[in-house]
Amino acid sequence: MAEVAVLYLDDLYAGQRFTSGTYLMDETRIKEFALEFDPQPFHLGESAAQASVFKGLAASGWHTAAVAMRLLVTGGLPFVNGIVGLGGEISWPPPTRPGDLLRVESEIVEITPSRSKPQQGVVTVRMLNQNGEAFTFSTRRFWYGNVRCDLSAPRKEMEHAPRKIGTSQLA
Amino acid sequence: MAEVAVLYLDDLYAGQRFTSGTYLMDETRIKEFALEFDPQPFHLGESAAQASVFKGLAASGWHTAAVAMRLLVTGGLPFVNGIVGLGGEISWPPPTRPGDLLRVESEIVEITPSRSKPQQGVVTVRMLNQNGEAFTFSTRRFWYGNVRCDLSAPRKEMEHAPRKIGTSQLA
Repeated sequence: MAEVAVLYLDDLYAGQRFTSGTYLMDETRIKEFALEFDPQPFHLGESAAQASVFKGLAASGWHTAAVAMRLLVTGGLPFVNGIVGLGGEISWPPPTRPGDLLRVESEIVEITPSRSKPQQGVVTVRMLNQNGEAFTFSTRRFWYGNVRCDLSAPRKEMEHAPRKIGTSQLA
Repeated sequence: MAEVAVLYLDDLYAGQRFTSGTYLMDETRIKEFALEFDPQPFHLGESAAQASVFKGLAASGWHTAAVAMRLLVTGGLPFVNGIVGLGGEISWPPPTRPGDLLRVESEIVEITPSRSKPQQGVVTVRMLNQNGEAFTFSTRRFWYGNVRCDLSAPRKEMEHAPRKIGTSQLA
C-alpha cells in the first residue's frame, strides 16, 4: 500500500506543491451523477450534447468539482486534520469528457493566522486532465479554486517524522 | 403537475428573483456521497463528526453545492437553454445537516453582452435552509455564488407567452 506523509501546519510553506493521484471519468457515472444533481440534456445523452454548446457529452461541473475533492482528500493534499473548505473561486474553462483522466495539482499560496481560527492557509488548486500531465500550469485546467483550509489542529505528539496514512483509495 | 415558465433573455431583468423547490437532505445519502467524493470522518459518521469542527454530522460542501444545482435546474432558474456555469465564488458559512430542507433563492444581478458570447448574465444565488424561509437574505445562506449563465439561445418562435416545462422532479 502506498503511503503519503500527513502534514502539520509547520510542515507547510508558500510555494509548496502537491500532486494527487488520478481519477478516470466514467461515462455511466457522468450520466448517473447528472440525473441526480444536474439533469440537463448535455450531461445526459450524446445526441443532445452534440447539439449543445458543449459539442459532446460533458460531465456536470459539480461532478468534476466533487472528483477534485476526492483527489485532494485521498492523498492529494494530506493535511493532518482534513480539508475543510471555507470558500473560494471556481471555474470550468473546458468541459470534462468521458475517459478523461483527472488529477489535481495544488500550491500553497499563503498561510494566514487569524484571531478566531488559530491558523488558516490559502491553497491554490489546479485540476488537470491527461493532456496537462507535463506539470504545466496553463489555462488547460479543469478546476481552479482558492481553498481555505483549517490547519489549526495541534500536533498531538512532539515528533519530527510526518505521520503516514494509507492511500489505498486512490484511483 | 406544476408548471414553471421558461424564460428567454428578454424576459430577464436585474433585480428579478426566483425561488426553487425544496430538497430534504437525507442522512444515508450524505454518507454515501461523502464516501464517494469526500471521505473525511466528519462527513461519514456521527461520533467522529461530534469531535470535529462541525460538532455533528455535516454534508460535504460539494454535496450541498450539487443539490443547489439540482434545485436550479429543476425549476429554480428556468432559463430556456439551461444553466451553464462558467464560474463564480462559493462559500459554505454553516454546515448542512441531515434533515435540513434546502432551497435556492436567486437574483439576477446583471446581464452583460459580450462579443464572443452574444449574451451572458450574472446571477447571484443564495441557498437557504428551513430556518431562512422567511425570505431573509441574511448570512444564513448555504451556498452563494455568482453563476454566469449562457443566455444566448435565440427564441425559436416569435411568441409572447413563456414556454412551460414540468417540474415533477422537484422534491
